[in-house]
Amino acid sequence: MDHKRPLSGDPSLLRRLNTAAALGVLREHEELTAPELATLIGVSRPTAHDVLLQLLGQDRVVELGSESEVPRTGAGRPARRFRFHAEAGHVVGVDIGAHKVLVHVADLRGRTVAVHRVTVTPALTAARRLRVVRDAVAACLAAAPGARPLALGIGTTGIVDPSGCVTLSTALPGWSGLDLTRELDGCVPGPVLVGNDIQLATLAEFSGGAAAGVRDGIYLYVGNRPGIGLWLRGQLHRGHHAAAGELLPFKPWADAYQRLMDWSAGHQGAEAPTRDSAVRAVVTAADAGDGGARYALRAFAEGLAGCLLTHVAALDPELVVLGGGVSRAGGVLREPLAEHLDANCRRPPEVRTSTLGEESTVTGAVRMALEYLEQTAHA
Amino acid sequence: MDHKRPLSGDPSLLRRLNTAAALGVLREHEELTAPELATLIGVSRPTAHDVLLQLLGQDRVVELGSESEVPRTGAGRPARRFRFHAEAGHVVGVDIGAHKVLVHVADLRGRTVAVHRVTVTPALTAARRLRVVRDAVAACLAAAPGARPLALGIGTTGIVDPSGCVTLSTALPGWSGLDLTRELDGCVPGPVLVGNDIQLATLAEFSGGAAAGVRDGIYLYVGNRPGIGLWLRGQLHRGHHAAAGELLPFKPWADAYQRLMDWSAGHQGAEAPTRDSAVRAVVTAADAGDGGARYALRAFAEGLAGCLLTHVAALDPELVVLGGGVSRAGGVLREPLAEHLDANCRRPPEVRTSTLGEESTVTGAVRMALEYLEQTAHA
Repeated sequence: MDHKRPLSGDPSLLRRLNTAAALGVLREHEELTAPELATLIGVSRPTAHDVLLQLLGQDRVVELGSESEVPRTGAGRPARRFRFHAEAGHVVGVDIGAHKVLVHVADLRGRTVAVHRVTVTPALTAARRLRVVRDAVAACLAAAPGARPLALGIGTTGIVDPSGCVTLSTALPGWSGLDLTRELDGCVPGPVLVGNDIQLATLAEFSGGAAAGVRDGIYLYVGNRPGIGLWLRGQLHRGHHAAAGELLPFKPWADAYQRLMDWSAGHQGAEAPTRDSAVRAVVTAADAGDGGARYALRAFAEGLAGCLLTHVAALDPELVVLGGGVSRAGGVLREPLAEHLDANCRRPPEVRTSTLGEESTVTGAVRMALEYLEQTAHA
Repeated sequence: MDHKRPLSGDPSLLRRLNTAAALGVLREHEELTAPELATLIGVSRPTAHDVLLQLLGQDRVVELGSESEVPRTGAGRPARRFRFHAEAGHVVGVDIGAHKVLVHVADLRGRTVAVHRVTVTPALTAARRLRVVRDAVAACLAAAPGARPLALGIGTTGIVDPSGCVTLSTALPGWSGLDLTRELDGCVPGPVLVGNDIQLATLAEFSGGAAAGVRDGIYLYVGNRPGIGLWLRGQLHRGHHAAAGELLPFKPWADAYQRLMDWSAGHQGAEAPTRDSAVRAVVTAADAGDGGARYALRAFAEGLAGCLLTHVAALDPELVVLGGGVSRAGGVLREPLAEHLDANCRRPPEVRTSTLGEESTVTGAVRMALEYLEQTAHA
């Protein structure tokens, strides 16, 4: 522990710890009584009762049964029942990409209550892209009547410094140098938090997606450019300049993509398929049992494994999550990738496919906003 | 925070946190009064006083001035002064390498009170190497009269699983599969803790050596084989199988070493210099101003940078610490390495040379044993 952090001599620290523990447990259960809460967080019943009354006063829990849902039995009063007040506030998450702007509105439990998606072109200027974002947030909130947005989480391509400024983006015109915190201030009443799209996808997969509960893992993003997200010792690793996750240009990666493009061109007659369309065509054919497409995917998996091996050796992860556009390839890509890692790693990690798919970054943006609210509420 | 961890409803958690904070501060100061401690850890004076009396009763602090060191002034009694009882116990750290067995005995502040070093040959059988270790520990303790060893920390080459078993070692004969915790049980009265040598060197450099206070960094070990240690978000990253830090075979590394060997052979007439002797010869000549040796070292630095670049991009560290045999090269190697990283990284880390040198692993073994005692004392 950091002994320089001042500790309070009065019991307020203990109360804050108990409150945080109670909220965590309440979020995971539909409803609880004070004795149930007492058992779950290991405090006395009177303490649990006090914590619940305090949270009730703060509108962070609601009491059930005032509508006589609970039938009174002969002996004594039934215990009062409480549930986390998930609708007491909301957060908005946005994934700003080259091809889409995706917005989610979620309650304080992280449950999505509204979705809005806009397709855009990569060539859009920064000013127009920002206008699309503001309009999309407004449209998504309009589709969630009664939502009380408290914070806005943004995920975007490029390196984002801790203050929310995009220090480098090669994918979006005019994006480098943009202060997204300032540009999007006012979209919702609360604070604006900004993160890198792959880092947020990693946060989403490891805190509630394909890799929930895993302590050390790598998220491998397979898009037009590859990237990795690092989940180490149960937390997202952002790096000293928040730039962690960069993969250096790697020839086997380019070769691997070229194989898919060649297969696609040869079989579809497309003269210059994009990487995205080539992947989609090969995956569809492989799923349908086409041997050539399966062979091309196995070669692609070998290139992916080549990208990963050096990081698997250095980081010793338990798991690799395969995300991005190719995640829809499911087992057709996961299995040969796992075979290559098994054959070439001393301690091969398990390989899973993303469960959040295209929604991983926006889910991570929601998660980041929720974590901010949780931390500031207990500060 | 992990809300599943049971919290105590009584104030014992708070007391434990205050005790841990007090010990941390006491370890860093020569002596303190209760009011000074109260200010440093942010508790009331009566609470600080209670904590000090509790620690006094446990023999973890001693009171000063009972020998009337403090002159009484006219007005009132002087405040009672306390210091951390660093001599209340000791730990033993051992670095078991191919060429040496190095033992330190340190007090509870980590200050070395005795050192014992034995030179061995790489070909030693496991049984003989273990006997050397046991004898060296006994000899080092004999050189520290009054030492009360409470724990033994062991650093060794190879992958060490969390139970203290060497799961793989290519450098020491018979070492793979050895359960070092069991083999060395009884050398000191307390528990035996075992870790990988490079991971422990990393712990030492980042918790008190060249990189004290740095949050994200890489320790680059340059021995006969290269390896890295990862210090991420203020902690050692061990990995899922405790095997983090492996560098895959890398051709520029082998080429880099060959250049040093060629220079050494050409200038010293040695027919087959070892890597170690070649490094020593080149560094000595470069330090003396030999242009050819400096050129060979610059080429070596380029190979090192090639090993590092992919990990610097992925992890975004603030700092790289250069350790192992070549660390004695100081600026002659550090400067060209930093130049190569500056030229090839988007966000180049600073490069520092190890300050602990050959003592880094044994210092990390001592640190591991001290951390174990601190954690178990507060559990």
